[in-house]
Amino acid sequence: MIIFKHAMKIPSALYQMKRNLSSKGSKLIDGKKISQEIQKEIRVEIDAWMNKGHRRPCLIAILVGENPASQKYVHNKMKAAKDIGITSKTIKLPNTTTESEIIEEIKRLNEDSSVDGILVQLPVPEHVSERNVCNAVDPHKDVDGFHITNMGRLAINLDTFVPATALGVIELIKRSQVPTLGKNVVVCGRSKNVGLPIALLLHSDARNECPGHEATVTICHRHTPPEELSCFTKRADIIITATGIVNLIKADMVKPGACIIDVGINRIMTEEGKPKIVGDVDFEAVCEVAGHITPVPGGVGPMTVAMLMFNTLKAAKNLVKNQQ
Amino acid sequence: MIIFKHAMKIPSALYQMKRNLSSKGSKLIDGKKISQEIQKEIRVEIDAWMNKGHRRPCLIAILVGENPASQKYVHNKMKAAKDIGITSKTIKLPNTTTESEIIEEIKRLNEDSSVDGILVQLPVPEHVSERNVCNAVDPHKDVDGFHITNMGRLAINLDTFVPATALGVIELIKRSQVPTLGKNVVVCGRSKNVGLPIALLLHSDARNECPGHEATVTICHRHTPPEELSCFTKRADIIITATGIVNLIKADMVKPGACIIDVGINRIMTEEGKPKIVGDVDFEAVCEVAGHITPVPGGVGPMTVAMLMFNTLKAAKNLVKNQQ
Repeated sequence: MIIFKHAMKIPSALYQMKRNLSSKGSKLIDGKKISQEIQKEIRVEIDAWMNKGHRRPCLIAILVGENPASQKYVHNKMKAAKDIGITSKTIKLPNTTTESEIIEEIKRLNEDSSVDGILVQLPVPEHVSERNVCNAVDPHKDVDGFHITNMGRLAINLDTFVPATALGVIELIKRSQVPTLGKNVVVCGRSKNVGLPIALLLHSDARNECPGHEATVTICHRHTPPEELSCFTKRADIIITATGIVNLIKADMVKPGACIIDVGINRIMTEEGKPKIVGDVDFEAVCEVAGHITPVPGGVGPMTVAMLMFNTLKAAKNLVKNQQ
Repeated sequence: MIIFKHAMKIPSALYQMKRNLSSKGSKLIDGKKISQEIQKEIRVEIDAWMNKGHRRPCLIAILVGENPASQKYVHNKMKAAKDIGITSKTIKLPNTTTESEIIEEIKRLNEDSSVDGILVQLPVPEHVSERNVCNAVDPHKDVDGFHITNMGRLAINLDTFVPATALGVIELIKRSQVPTLGKNVVVCGRSKNVGLPIALLLHSDARNECPGHEATVTICHRHTPPEELSCFTKRADIIITATGIVNLIKADMVKPGACIIDVGINRIMTEEGKPKIVGDVDFEAVCEVAGHITPVPGGVGPMTVAMLMFNTLKAAKNLVKNQQ
């Protein structure tokens, strides 16, 4: 009782969450901690890289318009880059910038040998084609992995830049030592930069240049009937959800011991009228049955930034290798 | 009884098959007939195209080495092209041709404005990189859909050349009026030119530039445990198998009324010691439960050639459109 009272006096959400989880048998996948480990590893690699006489890796973000969420995302990415030892800069363009002006800017960066990674923060304004902009980035500098060539390389498991969130999900599964070979995976959501790349990486052959993970993968989406979704998830060893639907995954849909990766980021109001960020999973209830589970926030979110740094260092190394 | 005796006197395999099927309630998907319908439609389209003053579409095959199966496949494709009104030619190169010599030949065809479609018959000899050769073909002339850019376009549902066998499977499902929206599909086999493109087309959104088919898709493969495969197939409305495993799909694995598309081509010996071509499905037994089923031969096989003709006409039209 004394311990409990003490805990109540320091009401840290994560503390409370961990306490609940350990009593329930679920193992929290602490994305924040894992992302910090990865960033530490990358920092060490960057030091080693520079000790070999190479310049500091360099990441440039292009931010078009004043979308507050985009501004925040870019700020977080650039801060992480700086902290890790990557030269970073944000090119801010007004909302009125034309597509060809953006593409001109990208071409300038493509040709700039001091730049390793280029990212265009999405969404771009409506008058700009997202696809044209993504395809304008040199595939070798495409640290977001959105260029059509890199999507093709991913589809046939050639070495490529895997979109950072998808790569983050895979890394969480790997570092949590959750087996995938011959296991049933359900991916909820088929977006081209999250659900699809995850499905492509998880179902494919481990012997490929970009190794797959040999799982049996089911891709579910808006047209999967709820009762069918439930059938699939109940047999799944791993459930990955990236739908933006609050409480899509409930406890009675989860096989005991399954690993749950929640990519959803949903802004809701609590009963007390307070804003709160939640995922797609009914977290408290699912913890009772899951073997591993990611919290939201603090799960997949921090991994996206870490894997972007991973891709940037990779771009820097590839550029030197290709020059040789 | 008299009718039965009469039937015995004209022992046509297809006749016998159809008779069995109609008594069992399964509807045979006659790929040969459907492919002939498609080829007839393409012939009409080619006539209309030429009536507008355009030249005849032109397809060139590159055949390296003396592989008898490859020779036969190329022969069939070129014959179909000729029959349909497509100019066709096979460039035969010796087995000793180097990769760069093959790529030089491809480049010449890329630049030849009288050529619409180029296909390199696979497999190429071991000393040649299949990937380099596929990527050397101008994506606009890549009627096999194997270029990395076209794989990327397929992955994100942009208009592209879909690999012919995958396109043939989709067309068989469409023309048999088998619904896909929200239905469970199992794809057995994850090859990059058959299983994967089929899965990409079937799971994705119908509102895309290259429309998807809105099914819930499970990709199974060598590491899917047999008992799990069976669980998935039993719940499937459509099963597509492209594994090369004889009798992989048995009657007790199939939901009554399901649609079965058999891409397998396996050479076996009958009990009487005669060679026979069969698919991946235990055809006779599965007919008892399936709603629709493709035979082997005469199912998917003929569709591959028809859809290659479709892609060649499409290439011809695109080339003119891109010149305008």
